[in-house]
Amino acid sequence: MGVIGAGYWGPNLIRNFSLVPGVTVTGVADAKPERRSFIGLRYPSVKLFESAQEMIAWDQTDAVVIATPVNTHFPLAKAALEAGKHVMLEKPMCASVAECDQLIELAEKKGLTLMVDHTFLYTGAVNKICDMVKKGEIGEVLYFDSVRVNLGLFQHDVNVLWDLAPHDVSIMDAVMAGGIAESVSALGRAHLGTKVENIAYMTVMFNNGAIAHFHVNWLAPVKVRTTLIGGSKKMIVYDDTEPSEKVKIYDKGVDVATDVEKVHRTMVQYRTGDMHAPKIDDTEALFAVAKEFTDAIREKRRPKTDAHSGRRVVAVLEAANKSLASEGRLVKL
Amino acid sequence: MGVIGAGYWGPNLIRNFSLVPGVTVTGVADAKPERRSFIGLRYPSVKLFESAQEMIAWDQTDAVVIATPVNTHFPLAKAALEAGKHVMLEKPMCASVAECDQLIELAEKKGLTLMVDHTFLYTGAVNKICDMVKKGEIGEVLYFDSVRVNLGLFQHDVNVLWDLAPHDVSIMDAVMAGGIAESVSALGRAHLGTKVENIAYMTVMFNNGAIAHFHVNWLAPVKVRTTLIGGSKKMIVYDDTEPSEKVKIYDKGVDVATDVEKVHRTMVQYRTGDMHAPKIDDTEALFAVAKEFTDAIREKRRPKTDAHSGRRVVAVLEAANKSLASEGRLVKL
Amino acid sequence: MGVIGAGYWGPNLIRNFSLVPGVTVTGVADAKPERRSFIGLRYPSVKLFESAQEMIAWDQTDAVVIATPVNTHFPLAKAALEAGKHVMLEKPMCASVAECDQLIELAEKKGLTLMVDHTFLYTGAVNKICDMVKKGEIGEVLYFDSVRVNLGLFQHDVNVLWDLAPHDVSIMDAVMAGGIAESVSALGRAHLGTKVENIAYMTVMFNNGAIAHFHVNWLAPVKVRTTLIGGSKKMIVYDDTEPSEKVKIYDKGVDVATDVEKVHRTMVQYRTGDMHAPKIDDTEALFAVAKEFTDAIREKRRPKTDAHSGRRVVAVLEAANKSLASEGRLVKL
Amino acid sequence: MGVIGAGYWGPNLIRNFSLVPGVTVTGVADAKPERRSFIGLRYPSVKLFESAQEMIAWDQTDAVVIATPVNTHFPLAKAALEAGKHVMLEKPMCASVAECDQLIELAEKKGLTLMVDHTFLYTGAVNKICDMVKKGEIGEVLYFDSVRVNLGLFQHDVNVLWDLAPHDVSIMDAVMAGGIAESVSALGRAHLGTKVENIAYMTVMFNNGAIAHFHVNWLAPVKVRTTLIGGSKKMIVYDDTEPSEKVKIYDKGVDVATDVEKVHRTMVQYRTGDMHAPKIDDTEALFAVAKEFTDAIREKRRPKTDAHSGRRVVAVLEAANKSLASEGRLVKL
Repeated sequence: MGVIGAGYWGPNLIRNFSLVPGVTVTGVADAKPERRSFIGLRYPSVKLFESAQEMIAWDQTDAVVIATPVNTHFPLAKAALEAGKHVMLEKPMCASVAECDQLIELAEKKGLTLMVDHTFLYTGAVNKICDMVKKGEIGEVLYFDSVRVNLGLFQHDVNVLWDLAPHDVSIMDAVMAGGIAESVSALGRAHLGTKVENIAYMTVMFNNGAIAHFHVNWLAPVKVRTTLIGGSKKMIVYDDTEPSEKVKIYDKGVDVATDVEKVHRTMVQYRTGDMHAPKIDDTEALFAVAKEFTDAIREKRRPKTDAHSGRRVVAVLEAANKSLASEGRLVKL
Repeated sequence: MGVIGAGYWGPNLIRNFSLVPGVTVTGVADAKPERRSFIGLRYPSVKLFESAQEMIAWDQTDAVVIATPVNTHFPLAKAALEAGKHVMLEKPMCASVAECDQLIELAEKKGLTLMVDHTFLYTGAVNKICDMVKKGEIGEVLYFDSVRVNLGLFQHDVNVLWDLAPHDVSIMDAVMAGGIAESVSALGRAHLGTKVENIAYMTVMFNNGAIAHFHVNWLAPVKVRTTLIGGSKKMIVYDDTEPSEKVKIYDKGVDVATDVEKVHRTMVQYRTGDMHAPKIDDTEALFAVAKEFTDAIREKRRPKTDAHSGRRVVAVLEAANKSLASEGRLVKL
Repeated sequence: MGVIGAGYWGPNLIRNFSLVPGVTVTGVADAKPERRSFIGLRYPSVKLFESAQEMIAWDQTDAVVIATPVNTHFPLAKAALEAGKHVMLEKPMCASVAECDQLIELAEKKGLTLMVDHTFLYTGAVNKICDMVKKGEIGEVLYFDSVRVNLGLFQHDVNVLWDLAPHDVSIMDAVMAGGIAESVSALGRAHLGTKVENIAYMTVMFNNGAIAHFHVNWLAPVKVRTTLIGGSKKMIVYDDTEPSEKVKIYDKGVDVATDVEKVHRTMVQYRTGDMHAPKIDDTEALFAVAKEFTDAIREKRRPKTDAHSGRRVVAVLEAANKSLASEGRLVKL
Repeated sequence: MGVIGAGYWGPNLIRNFSLVPGVTVTGVADAKPERRSFIGLRYPSVKLFESAQEMIAWDQTDAVVIATPVNTHFPLAKAALEAGKHVMLEKPMCASVAECDQLIELAEKKGLTLMVDHTFLYTGAVNKICDMVKKGEIGEVLYFDSVRVNLGLFQHDVNVLWDLAPHDVSIMDAVMAGGIAESVSALGRAHLGTKVENIAYMTVMFNNGAIAHFHVNWLAPVKVRTTLIGGSKKMIVYDDTEPSEKVKIYDKGVDVATDVEKVHRTMVQYRTGDMHAPKIDDTEALFAVAKEFTDAIREKRRPKTDAHSGRRVVAVLEAANKSLASEGRLVKL
């Protein structure tokens, strides 16, 4: 296994892949000498490369993990696939759907595994939510509302949607699997003289009447990581900042009376019941990511977060950027 | 003083107007006999009317308060103004801007006070926030983000925006007084076979680069009443469900380096400081509303929440309905 | 029904007794003219007495409710029982166990109902907890830890234990029914030149190895009303300030390994599981109190919070005062 | 610098001492081979010892840090001091006051630095609180109330007071420096067939009328780390589980009227004001500990948490054990 990019996320990937039985991280590439020496000190047996291309060409890796800025994903992944390597890309998969499509085609032609690291889909909390949705316990999913805000670093190359929303869009993609996302609207603002939006609101409309919404913000005084999921039977509050009770399931909802007049008259058509916070598996999600990539390669099967799911996330973000550029117009997917 | 409408809010109005020195609630009109007898038991000296028109015509009231469904506001207020009575309307002021304009013109012609009951603008919390903004303590207001959701009654005549957002739009109108709201986009869904949206997201764009956003929802498992206000100097979290610390002021923000490259390199351009939760005056806001209406009449001056502020709120809601009908298109105000 | 004492709590009693079918509040006694006129305005048909003794002697009441300072409970209740009236006393029942005993004896001799208003035992939250304990769902109750603190009025006649702890001691009495309270220790301080303790800590030791503890405080910056109940199977957190999820049941505990050495070595003998917050009946508890007193009289049966339970609470408080006076010495009950 | 004990806390000490300029961790002693190899992998240049005595005798350390079970502190520290090494002991300092006294005398005779690692006194939160108290901002400290509970490992050698309370007692010792702790009472229970208390309540009485109280518990369903500090001017809530606002200062209190009667009549003698949460320095406290030990050695001065402060903590715990053994009797210090 080789890792390209040893910045913020790279060391976590190296650490977790090193823990997967049968996997050896043999090479790491990073253009910055201080990052290479950081890795060299911790993993003396790893070969360090200044050039990613050189490591891709090296014959001591079967697979590469690409943890570099999104605009470099496509050329690096293309080169790696062409060199016959399995590839895992950090999120978001690529800078455009067109790039995703080329990589998907190339990987299929070559029979190689192409996976995207949507880490949240490997957390105990999101697994629990998806299980419940799949089993029909919360009924039809009516809405998905996500807020991911805090005082964060202003990026200068990507806007806040591309920085923060990939997590939530990938969760939406898994939770709302019962419907098809049809169109996207987004509005935002670039404040303080910057070029890219630091606050944005995005809405996704589904073919089955469901609606999803995302609030992402680099300029919020408090850290909020909350998702509300409204089902026809039950509702979920998923708060990722909670240390222990991340997922709360409310046996609450609305029973619609057939006589609409009556709804108005009786004033209490809603139903409230117990709340339940299931125990959440707190295994490190990134280890599960590393294991899934490895297993998918070994078993020659599609990984859970395959290139198609990565492409769906990019499609939403790409449509959001188009919508941002046209004053919130609803852009078809 | 006469009160039209003795449903949910009417009794609160009667109670608070009764406490204003020099004010007597002389008449109450409600079509429902059970509401009339409810009031009769509590206020034996009040004259009860089945017909609002009859009470308007009655010579024992100088002013009327109208607390009926929004679609009746215009005809009742028009009749009252024509009969020479000062008028206070419940929020939202009318069902359309055109109706608001007619009432404003009529009131001005007759020299009568026309006020809208935007109660939240009389709370200690919102007063504190507006004071701080006016004094420049939080700097330029960059965004206003409001969430007002809970498990609520599904209305059948108005959508969730017209039901819940008037509060927040009136607060936005006061807080964002430094900019002009230019356009509105809204998307929402009517679930469970109903006709009107039970979940909606609305965005308001300002001429000065500010952005406001509203999430209203009748189908949420938890009650949330939170507003984030991002200023260039400080940021505010206003949580109306907090019993004591409703307003928290964060001495946090972002100092933008002139060299954008540097922002990226240094990774810590944001600034964090103390948090401060000022003591909030907890006088009942509705008493202040009653007093303001009375004082404005006596002093022949514009009330704080005059018809123009009421009209601005209706303008946003009307634009939101147009946007909802055209898939979130940004509608100019 | 007659009510003695129309101060803070009296009007709530009158309102709730008025709602019990078949009950009429005929008389109210209070020495203060302003309290009498307050009641007179709201309940014109009630006869008002300056003297409690006079009302007790009056033939238009079958039962009296005594909501006066604790040191007057005994003479008033004694007079009422001697006059053949059923009696409900506010908590705490009396100023001493000796007084309680005399009243119990007198009520039994006369065949009259004697009840204490331990309101909390009629709340949905405490009922839910007691049900669970009774059914064995939380296992053996190992400890009961209660904190009731806030910025409160400094009383000058009773200390903070007698003011705040009766609630929690009555809940303890119901929850810990599987053991017998054997001894009490209390320590506290009277600050700011006052004569009675404004902060106190009380511990109750049980014959079965259980322990109960109470922290009461008039000088705390935040309002806390939290009870932890540790069972051998499950544990409960009861937070009375929570608007909706007052009772949380944790499927957590400790499985003790027989090999004590092993406990130390393995480091993870505890067990964590789901959390569950049952829906709590939010009917007003005081109505249930009023109904229970009425029903007990009619059905000639012991009320749920009978004089014996009231006496047990006073016994703990009396022992606590003795312990306070002897530097925390453990006082036998 | 040599470190004895490479269990749970040892590696943190090694890491932080390694970061202090001019300090080299030259040796680490641990009886367990797996702990030695754990350290060896991470710090290849460190010499590893099976025997602590051997490392103490070794001439390549000037100072030793002892992070072993409390009952071994005395013999190890004694040996180290006799070998002319400066010594830092983990908390609690020793198993008895007598042991503390011997070490203090020995260190003074030899002119060596003897320090105790009361880590919490080096946190930004506790520093902030102590600063405020010293400056008189909160007035006279009336009470100190600490709760430290969670589902924790049942120890078999020390009770829950000796395990959890040293942190809080050391904080109390710093915060309450204006008074002298005079006596200690403690009650607790050993549940589930164990020998040592898993739940305990301890009260400390001060000569100036202040009171301190500690609730420690290994069997609680939720993690609580809250300290209330009541001053005559302001009050503090210190919640160590809060990610950002650990210290909240309430401008609340009670103004005592000279006329005690009046207190009762007016019903509102308390004062409420703003709440303030200062920014807390979040530097790792253990680095400050390492630096303080180093600086104190270099500057030949008393460290902040010197042996006398360590002894005061042990004195409280020793008295608590005596009180536990005599049913909560108040034991003089």
